[in-house]
Amino acid sequence: MSAVLQNNTPAEAEGREPWEKYRAAAGGLDEYWYPVMTAAELRQKKRATVELVGRKLVLLADGAKFRALLDACPHRQVPLSLGKVEFPGTITCMYHGWTFNLESGRMVAALTDGPDSPINGKVGVRTYPVEERIGLVFVWMGEGKPVPVEDDVPTELFREDARVYPFVRTVGGNWRHATENGFDESHVKMLHRYAAWVTFRNVSAWNETSIDKSDDGVWLERVQRNVHLFDDYPGLGSWPKKRFWKPEPNKGVTTGGKDHAVGVRLPCILRVRQPGKADWTHYEWYVPINKDSYIYLVLAVTWRSSPWKRFMFWMRYWTYILWVHHYGFNNQDLGVVAKTPEGAPVRLFRPDISIIEWRRHLEQNARPVNRSGNNKGAGA
Amino acid sequence: MSAVLQNNTPAEAEGREPWEKYRAAAGGLDEYWYPVMTAAELRQKKRATVELVGRKLVLLADGAKFRALLDACPHRQVPLSLGKVEFPGTITCMYHGWTFNLESGRMVAALTDGPDSPINGKVGVRTYPVEERIGLVFVWMGEGKPVPVEDDVPTELFREDARVYPFVRTVGGNWRHATENGFDESHVKMLHRYAAWVTFRNVSAWNETSIDKSDDGVWLERVQRNVHLFDDYPGLGSWPKKRFWKPEPNKGVTTGGKDHAVGVRLPCILRVRQPGKADWTHYEWYVPINKDSYIYLVLAVTWRSSPWKRFMFWMRYWTYILWVHHYGFNNQDLGVVAKTPEGAPVRLFRPDISIIEWRRHLEQNARPVNRSGNNKGAGA
Amino acid sequence: MSAVLQNNTPAEAEGREPWEKYRAAAGGLDEYWYPVMTAAELRQKKRATVELVGRKLVLLADGAKFRALLDACPHRQVPLSLGKVEFPGTITCMYHGWTFNLESGRMVAALTDGPDSPINGKVGVRTYPVEERIGLVFVWMGEGKPVPVEDDVPTELFREDARVYPFVRTVGGNWRHATENGFDESHVKMLHRYAAWVTFRNVSAWNETSIDKSDDGVWLERVQRNVHLFDDYPGLGSWPKKRFWKPEPNKGVTTGGKDHAVGVRLPCILRVRQPGKADWTHYEWYVPINKDSYIYLVLAVTWRSSPWKRFMFWMRYWTYILWVHHYGFNNQDLGVVAKTPEGAPVRLFRPDISIIEWRRHLEQNARPVNRSGNNKGAGA
Repeated sequence: MSAVLQNNTPAEAEGREPWEKYRAAAGGLDEYWYPVMTAAELRQKKRATVELVGRKLVLLADGAKFRALLDACPHRQVPLSLGKVEFPGTITCMYHGWTFNLESGRMVAALTDGPDSPINGKVGVRTYPVEERIGLVFVWMGEGKPVPVEDDVPTELFREDARVYPFVRTVGGNWRHATENGFDESHVKMLHRYAAWVTFRNVSAWNETSIDKSDDGVWLERVQRNVHLFDDYPGLGSWPKKRFWKPEPNKGVTTGGKDHAVGVRLPCILRVRQPGKADWTHYEWYVPINKDSYIYLVLAVTWRSSPWKRFMFWMRYWTYILWVHHYGFNNQDLGVVAKTPEGAPVRLFRPDISIIEWRRHLEQNARPVNRSGNNKGAGA
Repeated sequence: MSAVLQNNTPAEAEGREPWEKYRAAAGGLDEYWYPVMTAAELRQKKRATVELVGRKLVLLADGAKFRALLDACPHRQVPLSLGKVEFPGTITCMYHGWTFNLESGRMVAALTDGPDSPINGKVGVRTYPVEERIGLVFVWMGEGKPVPVEDDVPTELFREDARVYPFVRTVGGNWRHATENGFDESHVKMLHRYAAWVTFRNVSAWNETSIDKSDDGVWLERVQRNVHLFDDYPGLGSWPKKRFWKPEPNKGVTTGGKDHAVGVRLPCILRVRQPGKADWTHYEWYVPINKDSYIYLVLAVTWRSSPWKRFMFWMRYWTYILWVHHYGFNNQDLGVVAKTPEGAPVRLFRPDISIIEWRRHLEQNARPVNRSGNNKGAGA
Repeated sequence: MSAVLQNNTPAEAEGREPWEKYRAAAGGLDEYWYPVMTAAELRQKKRATVELVGRKLVLLADGAKFRALLDACPHRQVPLSLGKVEFPGTITCMYHGWTFNLESGRMVAALTDGPDSPINGKVGVRTYPVEERIGLVFVWMGEGKPVPVEDDVPTELFREDARVYPFVRTVGGNWRHATENGFDESHVKMLHRYAAWVTFRNVSAWNETSIDKSDDGVWLERVQRNVHLFDDYPGLGSWPKKRFWKPEPNKGVTTGGKDHAVGVRLPCILRVRQPGKADWTHYEWYVPINKDSYIYLVLAVTWRSSPWKRFMFWMRYWTYILWVHHYGFNNQDLGVVAKTPEGAPVRLFRPDISIIEWRRHLEQNARPVNRSGNNKGAGA
C-alpha cells in the first residue's frame, strides 16, 4: 500500500476542487468496458437490447461471436433489434431491408433498392466492441481505441481456479450514488444494523477510517484505524443497545478490521473480501444505464481447485449467500440509493472521506473523453 | 354586518386590479395554520408524511406532542420519514444515523461518526410548529412567527358544546378553484340540481346576490336579495322544469335565504349554516398540497349539551349527512374542480361577484410573505 | 396521367427546398375536411369527444343534424361534453348553466343568472362545420370558409353503386409518417414480406418506380417501371429465398404492376386498387389528432349493382378482407409507424422518391392557413 491519503475535512476537499470530470459523469464514464449481462443469457436468447451510458444498443450472438450495434437504422430510426437475420453475419432492418454487417456496421445492401442502389457504401450504423470474459458480456462505450478488457476487470478474476457466480438486476438510482454507497463505511453502522447477516455479529457504533491506495494505483481501500463497538453520546446515552445474543465485545467477532478490506476502482467496481473462514469475495459493478438507473451486477467469487470444495461453495451460494447477502443485505442498499435524489445539495461529514477520496480519484484517473473518434465505426 | 361591497361587473373588477398576492398563491398561502389530518389518526399511526404548500413533511407523535419536520436529511436528502426512533424525542436517519431533536430540528448526534463528530452543532433540519385543536393536527407553514392557532380557525368551533365530525380526503385540483367553487352560489343551481339532497326541495333558477363582510372583517358572506324559483328564458321557455314531487313554490321550502348563510374566510375555509331544523353547520378546508392537489377536509359540527341530542346527531351523521352531503353532494364539487384547468383563461359573469370579492379580500387581507425567517428553525 | 415528375435523388430534392408548409404540419393541416367516426356510431351514442388537429371537440347528434363545438365552456373551461341538453338544439354546461346554440355556438342563456343576464349576447363557443357523407362524419377544421366536402373526398366514393365498409381506430404515431408509409413502395418488400396476404404470391425484391400525377392534379400515383422478382446481392447471394409454394416467377401472379395502382392525395388519403379479380379498392385516412397520434380510418369499397354480387362482397369482407388485410397486413404498418420517432434525423434513399414527391406535392398544393377567420363562429 502506498501512503495514506491526506485526511481533509470533507467540506474543504469538496470546496477546493472543481471536479469537472466527476460532475460531467452523471450518465456514466465513456472510455471503459462495462459488463451488461451473462454470456449464457445472450447465447440462449441470441438477441437483447440494453441501454448503456445513455445509448440504446442491440446485442447479438453471431455464431460464437457477440456483436453490439446502435439500435437505430439510420434510414428512419426504426430499432434494428426488430429486424431479421436474412444473411449470416448481418442484420436486416424490418422496415426497408437495409442490411448491416454485424462486425463493421457498414450497410452491405439496401435489399429493396436492388444490388446497385446508389446509397451503397454511403451509410453504416455505429458498432461497439464486445468481448466475453469470465462468463460476462463486456461492451466498450468509448470513442477512443479500446483498451484490453483486462485493464477494466480485477486481475484475480482471471485466475484459472476462480469460480464466478453472477447475479444481474436493472434498478433505479444513479450509478455514482450506488458506487459511493458501496465504498462508504458509515452507512453499514445504521442502514445494515438490522440485516439478517449481522444478527449474531457486533456492528460497531463508529470507526476511525482512512483511505489507502493500492501499490498499482488501481484500488482505493478503506482502513479501519480504531473500531468503537459502543460509545456514549452526550444527552442521549449509550449506543448501540447491547443484546444478549451478540458476542461479548472483547472476545467476539467484530465486523470490520483490516482483513475485511473494502475497495473501489474505476469505472464503477466494488470489492469486498469476506471476513472469517468463508473464503470468498464479493464484487459489484454499478453499470450506468443513464443518470436515473443502472445495471446492478453482483459476483460472488471463490478460488478453489478441489471439486469437493467447489461443491461446498456451490451449496453455500445457493442456500445462503444469494439470500442473505444478495437479497437481504444488498436490497437495503438498492432501496436507499433509489431514494437518494440525483443533483440535490449534500452536506458531507467526516466518514465521507471515502466518498471524497473516490471523487478525487475519479477526477484524477478516469480516462478522458476521446474526441478523436477512433471507434466511430461506419456510422457518422 | 358592515356595508355591502360595491357590486362591480366582474370583468371590470378583475381588469382593474393587479391582484399580485392572489396570482402568486397558486400553490398556497404561506403564513397560515393548516389542518392536515385528525389527531386520532396521527396518534395511532405515530408517523405520517404529508405535502403542504409544496413542502414534504414528516409528522410524528412524540409522546403527547406532535412534531413536523422537513422530510429530508440534510446529509444526502434521504427522507427522514424512513428513519428510526433510536432515542426518545429524536429521529435517526436510516442511512447514516444523523439524529435530530424533534422539537428544535437540531442534529444532536451523527451516531456513525462518534460522540465528538466535527459536524456536531453545525446542521439541523427545518421544523414546523404543530398544534392540536378540535381533534385536528394544525401545521404552521409560514416564515414568520406563528400567530395563535385560534386566529386561523372559526371561533365557534372552540365552544365547549361543539361536536365535530371530520372527514379528510386528498383530491386533485387547485385549492383556489375549490375555494371559489365553495363560495360560488350559481353552480348550485346547475351542478347540484340533480343531487339526492335536493330531490324534495326546490332549487331556484337564479338569485340576486350580494356579498357582505362580517363585522370583524373575517368572513365574506353571501346574501340572497331575490330568489327566482322559476323564470322564462326568451326563445327557450320556462326553467327549471316543474316536478310534481317538489313542494309548491309559494309555500314550500326553498334552498337559499338569509338563514342559510354561506361564508368564506382566509386561508381557505368555507362555512355553510344548514337550513331548517337540522341545526348543524358544514365547514370545508381546501388545504393546498401544491398547485395541482389539495386536502379536502370537511367538518360537520353541531353544538349540543344534552347527551340525547348528541346521540341523535351521531345517528344523523352516520346514516345521512356522511352519505348525502359529504359523498353525494360534495363529490359533484370534487369532480368539477378537478376538471377546471389551472391557469386557463376565464370569462366571468354577474354571479361571479362572490369570486371577485373573495379574490379582492385575499388580495387585501392575506398575511404577507415574511422574508425575515423567524421560523427557519435550526436548518439553513 | 401528366408528365412523369423529375426523378431527383432524394437527398438533393430534400436539401433544395425549404418545405415550410410540410415542416409546420406536424400536428395536421388546418384547412380540410376530416372524417372522424361513422355516422351510425354518433347517431347511436348521441355524443362523442374527439381531438382533431390539436383541438378537443364535442360532437353531438342534434336530431338529424350533427354538430361540433370546441369542448370547453368559455366561463371556466370545463368540458361542454359533460353538460346536459336542457332545451332542444342547445347544450348547457354542467357547472353554471351557460347554454349554447349547437349550430351557431352563441350563448342563448346563462340560466343561473336569469333571463336578463348582462352577459347575454357577449359570448359564444367556437363551432366547426360538420357534414355526413358516405356514412362518415366529416369535420372542417379550417379558419377559412369551408370548401364543399366533395372537394376533400375521392369522387368515386359518391357513386350510387358504391358499397363502403369502414373500420376506425385511434393509434399512436405521427400522421405524416403514416401517410408516407402508405405511399412508400419499398417497405412492402420487407415489412410485409411475411404477411398472410402474400403467402402464395411473389413479393419482388425491388422495383424501379416513378411517380405520376393524375390529370386533375389531385393524386400522386406510383408507377412500377421494372419489377425485379429476385436479384443477386454481391457478397450475400440471391434474395428473396425461393419457396416451392410460391408461383413460378415467369408465369405466376406478381404483386405490383400498373393495374395495382397506389395513389395518395391531400389531406392524408391513400388509395390502393386491389390486383386481380377481387374488384375492390382500399382507402386509408390518417386523420391527425396531434403530432403523436392519429385516427386510422380504413375503407373497403366496391361498386356493384347486383344484390348477389353485393352479398358476395359482404361475405368476402367479413370472412377475409377484415382479417387478412385490415388486421394482418395493416397492423404491420401501424406497428412500424408507432416505432418511427417524430422529428428524428432521416437518411433517404432512391425508393423514397415517393416520399419526396409527396412532400413536394403537399408543399405546393396544400391549402394555406387562412388567418382571416371566416369560420371563427361566435367565440373569440
